[in-house]
Amino acid sequence: MKLAIDAMGGDHAPEAIVKGACTAVQNIPDLSIVLVGDQEQIKPFLTHTERIDIIHTTDVIKSEDEPVKAVRRKKNASMVLMANEVKEGRADACISAGNTGALMSAGLFIVGRIKGIDRPALSPTLPTLDGKGFLLLDVGANVDAKPQHLLQYGLMGSIYAEKVRGITNPRVGLLNVGTESQKGSDLAKKAFDLMEDAPIHFVGNVEARDFLNGVADVVVTDGFSGNIALKSIEGTALGMFSMMKEVFMKNVKTKVAAGVLKSDLKGLKDKLDYSEYGGAGLFGLAAPVIKAHGSSNETAVYNAIQQACQLVEQDVTAKIEETVQSYKAEEGNE
Amino acid sequence: MKLAIDAMGGDHAPEAIVKGACTAVQNIPDLSIVLVGDQEQIKPFLTHTERIDIIHTTDVIKSEDEPVKAVRRKKNASMVLMANEVKEGRADACISAGNTGALMSAGLFIVGRIKGIDRPALSPTLPTLDGKGFLLLDVGANVDAKPQHLLQYGLMGSIYAEKVRGITNPRVGLLNVGTESQKGSDLAKKAFDLMEDAPIHFVGNVEARDFLNGVADVVVTDGFSGNIALKSIEGTALGMFSMMKEVFMKNVKTKVAAGVLKSDLKGLKDKLDYSEYGGAGLFGLAAPVIKAHGSSNETAVYNAIQQACQLVEQDVTAKIEETVQSYKAEEGNE
Repeated sequence: MKLAIDAMGGDHAPEAIVKGACTAVQNIPDLSIVLVGDQEQIKPFLTHTERIDIIHTTDVIKSEDEPVKAVRRKKNASMVLMANEVKEGRADACISAGNTGALMSAGLFIVGRIKGIDRPALSPTLPTLDGKGFLLLDVGANVDAKPQHLLQYGLMGSIYAEKVRGITNPRVGLLNVGTESQKGSDLAKKAFDLMEDAPIHFVGNVEARDFLNGVADVVVTDGFSGNIALKSIEGTALGMFSMMKEVFMKNVKTKVAAGVLKSDLKGLKDKLDYSEYGGAGLFGLAAPVIKAHGSSNETAVYNAIQQACQLVEQDVTAKIEETVQSYKAEEGNE
Repeated sequence: MKLAIDAMGGDHAPEAIVKGACTAVQNIPDLSIVLVGDQEQIKPFLTHTERIDIIHTTDVIKSEDEPVKAVRRKKNASMVLMANEVKEGRADACISAGNTGALMSAGLFIVGRIKGIDRPALSPTLPTLDGKGFLLLDVGANVDAKPQHLLQYGLMGSIYAEKVRGITNPRVGLLNVGTESQKGSDLAKKAFDLMEDAPIHFVGNVEARDFLNGVADVVVTDGFSGNIALKSIEGTALGMFSMMKEVFMKNVKTKVAAGVLKSDLKGLKDKLDYSEYGGAGLFGLAAPVIKAHGSSNETAVYNAIQQACQLVEQDVTAKIEETVQSYKAEEGNE
């Protein structure tokens, strides 16, 4: 199995990317990796060269670049060359921690969609209190979703949860403003009807306040609402941690008390750290494309690599295509 | 000034409602209150009878009742009779901690809309780290919003922030998936263009991850996304508190340490408690209608009463009507 990885994307690139790749090839027997980026910057961190190649380029898509334009114009950017490796069959999957919008564009325009999937979905796994996590899709690939897109997200998410996360008969919920079946926007109501008939374990509407309690294994929503949910969760968690820090640093007494609780509270922070679950998959593309979190460290990169390997090994792309095609044929709504 | 209050709505009704009302009439000179509900249940908590009347009814809209049907059929429910007091001019404003959907229906069908406002918005004030809070609207009154609805929310929210919360030139933001001006759904893009031209201090797109940092005084969004944001924040905060509690109760050492931090951590919890900011206003109705949080205690009810008094004193309803009408006339888009 071969992965193409954008060595230049993310806050800690190339160091975290290169180190994560070195760890991966040492731990995963059949894996080989091609790192795409500036070899002068990559080499200092390359502790292991077996089964790791470099495609050298100095061009990079930056976080502030306008995604679509950047992908179209920067033909030699590390992310674009990475996607080309997949497109031309020299890599089975690819990973970048860079500009999310650009990766979605590169995925769509270079790697291309699975036949039968109208729109890809950006799909992170978010934390739950029991440590199992749940898949949320879409969080922003497609901000003007239609009911059939949400249906397709449900199908794709269910396959991912089963094949990669090993969940039997995964519970698929529809994000809504209430749990009753006739709730919500026109989009949500129509998606509900489609999902009820789909070959998934649909558990109906779920609410965002029940996310942490693990209300479903897969939660489906449009990219706008999903993005708002994701960022609301992130912002609240970060804000609360910064408020807690303030409390702990208040005086000598609180500092001592915080010291006692430190390791346990660190555990709490880790529990909410979703890079533990790997990156966000761009589901619906012709090959696995993983968006690692921008702040990914070496471990997060390694987790994303493991996730990409699972996606390839389980042949999730083919399984999605097959399921979507056969369901469309059955429904006669191709 | 006279307020009509649904004595039977909310988890702690009628006790918290009646006690909050008693506190209010003792602290607010010109206030008189009519409590609507079962007098047998109200009277035991009525420590003060001056300027407090009771409209007796034993019928109640329950939290599990289907909102629209309940309002139409339960003509003698406490919430319906409360709204009637406002409609018939015997009360200046009303408050309920009961079924949110039913209160929105009662507001719309009984109290009625302000001329020029297409859809009312449910508008809570959410916490920020600096304790100032921000107004989020809409959080679910209108889940299929159009661009002009969002514009109207901006106008209404700005007036409320200025008149009731005393913020000069309040910053109005549009909730979006990114801060750049061309971001987002079709709805968000069109609303952005309308809001740019409106007589408000529009600060452009804002992201949910910046809420706690007080990125704007008023944040406008459709009822679906707003509801998702609200519940994501609630769920994350509650989940984190329950995780923290688990850490604190782990063993004797952690319990002692937690004891030291207790009062400061309680402060943190209070900071995130949005009942401190009063209830959620249903803006755009012909008189102030306040939805107090379902779990409102006596203090939260008192805060909601103060808020209703401010809305009446500042004549916010008339000010909204005037602003919307003159803006429409100016734009020629009545």
